[in-house]
Amino acid sequence: MIKHLLSAADLDLDSATLVLDTATEMAAMASREVKKLPTLRGRTVVNLFYEDSTRTRVSFETAAKRLSADVINFSAKGSSVEKGESLKDTALTLQAMGIDGVVVRHPASGAPTTLSQWVDGSIINAGDGTHEHPTQALLDAYTMRSRLGQLKGLRVTIVGDVLHSRVARSNMLLLTTLGAEVTMVSPPTLVPVGARDWPAKVSYDLDAALPDSDVVMMLRVQRERMTEAYFPSTREYARRYGLDVRRMKLLPEHAIIMHPGPMIRGMEIAPEVADSPRSTIVEQVANGVSVRMACLYLLLGGRSL
Amino acid sequence: MIKHLLSAADLDLDSATLVLDTATEMAAMASREVKKLPTLRGRTVVNLFYEDSTRTRVSFETAAKRLSADVINFSAKGSSVEKGESLKDTALTLQAMGIDGVVVRHPASGAPTTLSQWVDGSIINAGDGTHEHPTQALLDAYTMRSRLGQLKGLRVTIVGDVLHSRVARSNMLLLTTLGAEVTMVSPPTLVPVGARDWPAKVSYDLDAALPDSDVVMMLRVQRERMTEAYFPSTREYARRYGLDVRRMKLLPEHAIIMHPGPMIRGMEIAPEVADSPRSTIVEQVANGVSVRMACLYLLLGGRSL
Amino acid sequence: MIKHLLSAADLDLDSATLVLDTATEMAAMASREVKKLPTLRGRTVVNLFYEDSTRTRVSFETAAKRLSADVINFSAKGSSVEKGESLKDTALTLQAMGIDGVVVRHPASGAPTTLSQWVDGSIINAGDGTHEHPTQALLDAYTMRSRLGQLKGLRVTIVGDVLHSRVARSNMLLLTTLGAEVTMVSPPTLVPVGARDWPAKVSYDLDAALPDSDVVMMLRVQRERMTEAYFPSTREYARRYGLDVRRMKLLPEHAIIMHPGPMIRGMEIAPEVADSPRSTIVEQVANGVSVRMACLYLLLGGRSL
Repeated sequence: MIKHLLSAADLDLDSATLVLDTATEMAAMASREVKKLPTLRGRTVVNLFYEDSTRTRVSFETAAKRLSADVINFSAKGSSVEKGESLKDTALTLQAMGIDGVVVRHPASGAPTTLSQWVDGSIINAGDGTHEHPTQALLDAYTMRSRLGQLKGLRVTIVGDVLHSRVARSNMLLLTTLGAEVTMVSPPTLVPVGARDWPAKVSYDLDAALPDSDVVMMLRVQRERMTEAYFPSTREYARRYGLDVRRMKLLPEHAIIMHPGPMIRGMEIAPEVADSPRSTIVEQVANGVSVRMACLYLLLGGRSL
Repeated sequence: MIKHLLSAADLDLDSATLVLDTATEMAAMASREVKKLPTLRGRTVVNLFYEDSTRTRVSFETAAKRLSADVINFSAKGSSVEKGESLKDTALTLQAMGIDGVVVRHPASGAPTTLSQWVDGSIINAGDGTHEHPTQALLDAYTMRSRLGQLKGLRVTIVGDVLHSRVARSNMLLLTTLGAEVTMVSPPTLVPVGARDWPAKVSYDLDAALPDSDVVMMLRVQRERMTEAYFPSTREYARRYGLDVRRMKLLPEHAIIMHPGPMIRGMEIAPEVADSPRSTIVEQVANGVSVRMACLYLLLGGRSL
Repeated sequence: MIKHLLSAADLDLDSATLVLDTATEMAAMASREVKKLPTLRGRTVVNLFYEDSTRTRVSFETAAKRLSADVINFSAKGSSVEKGESLKDTALTLQAMGIDGVVVRHPASGAPTTLSQWVDGSIINAGDGTHEHPTQALLDAYTMRSRLGQLKGLRVTIVGDVLHSRVARSNMLLLTTLGAEVTMVSPPTLVPVGARDWPAKVSYDLDAALPDSDVVMMLRVQRERMTEAYFPSTREYARRYGLDVRRMKLLPEHAIIMHPGPMIRGMEIAPEVADSPRSTIVEQVANGVSVRMACLYLLLGGRSL
């Protein structure tokens, strides 16, 4: 097994499948009311968050505690980071404290990779800049597999702010490894320059892509990362790239609708769509805990299940 | 037993008495140096605080940890709430993560009730706007019972900013259920319009009320919720509604003095009064942990004591 | 054993040695992969931080959790402190909640001592104003002993902002107790008035002091506590008091280089010096956990090792 989880590209078909299978076991145990496993007792996991994300932090914290690990939250706000400490010195500090795992979110793409050079414990990338968010891709793949049976040959359409989305990038990489076909639908101004080299089709026409989709994944519009020039108005965005009831009807009957959350109802997705039975948004959150338990379990070398 | 604790009105005489009796057992165990009970092992409690209140949060966190629950703090500041997430989506997220109990403080009256529609776990209202704070009322009733023997027939005078006080409202409801007689003493500008329908007497004359009180409960002046127009100066407030040494002498000899904290010494209450043996302010804090242990224990369905 | 750890001066030679010996046992257990000891199970430790210091907080939190204590973080920001609550009432609150230990950091010198008057639990000073930081001194002494064998007769040169440094003060007191000889090297503007009464030599010439040093301890420049008038420019400071490669060569071959962190590379210390094998900066962090485990263990009266 790999030591760190920095990118969805770290996982080949076997290791990705191992994570998904382990997550299935974690979920099965939770459904049998086995709420706490002793596997990571005595291990310490630090949540090192340089960006706020209560949702992701709580998911990892819940996962780690269900495995009996000790969890320490380290928010970079107001920390010695602001007294001028470098990422390297923060890394050496965590290393010296004997931390077994570091879950890191950082605004700079590549920060978790940099961190992994200095730390013996396992690094899990919980989102770095516009780069990657591999556990999100894993929980998305897990959700697709549990709803639709298998990933091979699955047609997945990812819609929205592809340019700024680490979720889109990690999903594209992981889904390709798992044999799915990915189409990106995005405003022309939000497609990165290198997109022609991606293992994915790029389209600007959402209506045309929907009838051929088994999965449609709406992305969060990350206004905090944009300038006005790149971005249409809320109404214009909703009209062209939002998933409303009319568009939902263009999907095949078996198709599912995903969103990584937090969603902006009425912009990226209509409330009726978000709350429809085809939506997996709530399942994704639940699966997130199982998948993160699996990642922590496998990376931190817990005893056998 | 009820599933959520949203309002003091949720409790009838039997269930309120059960909470108080269970709290007595919790306190007895603590005094026998049984510091940790295994009853909620494997259960997860989230402290969901949309308003700061370290005091209440620490009390609930201490209570939950003494019952061996895992506790996750979720401060709404800097969370996805600020990225536009609705209360509903936060609720669905916690629900999906399999959270067993949510302790919620929110600036909007009724938010915990709204939350309870979407969450299978138990919701405990830890203060919502100017509405209610039922565990505070329970710990106050517990304190009265342990100091004065019984609640039936007890004459309780609640003094201060009745208009903005969720503590006053929850106490009035619970104490009435438990058979006590409540009198509210307040500046005329701070009495709500509907007060004539309350199960309590309303008075503007503190000196007149004190000789007939077994309990006097001073409220915190919540300046952050007031505009100048409604509110007298500190000195004027202290003169008319503050509990000073002279006023303390107007009380019957057995009467006790309460304050939910944090108090502003010299405004609502004189330091000599706050620190006198008749003051139960510190006991209230201690009793808060026992009462919250009892609520978590009963609501989250721990094993038998 | 003493009840609180408020000042390095609380420790005589025997008790300081006991802490260091206990820390050695803690470190030995960690190296044998005994990651968690049950000694403080059921005890609650509050981290009461009125100043941000993630590094120190995480060190104490890690230490307490390795001893199986429950840890509650209480940041004074946004707490009832801001609603006007006094230190006394915060103390009485923690006392009432049955807290066993309070680790306190406070901007006011003497605050932990004041706190200890009102609390039955053990108070550990984790840094108060410009006064003291005794666990830092203990981990520094531990590091010196483990690198250089013994403290008696050791020549320790402390360099930098002596005026504002609680680290310097606590080290001077503890090292003197342990039989070391301390020299303070500092810009003339940063030497306190009373320095002539200190049990340490004072010098302004770093180059002259280095050849006679077994240990050189660089202090953090605390810009947040200074006004321009007192303080030279970064370049000027680095030139006169920074430890660069040339100065490192003035040290005897066996001498070690310490820094309490977080360090400002290029100002107080050159990157090549910070990362050299003579630097103990990372070891200090690791030793911090062992020393804090020892302090919590001894003060909170855990069962025998």
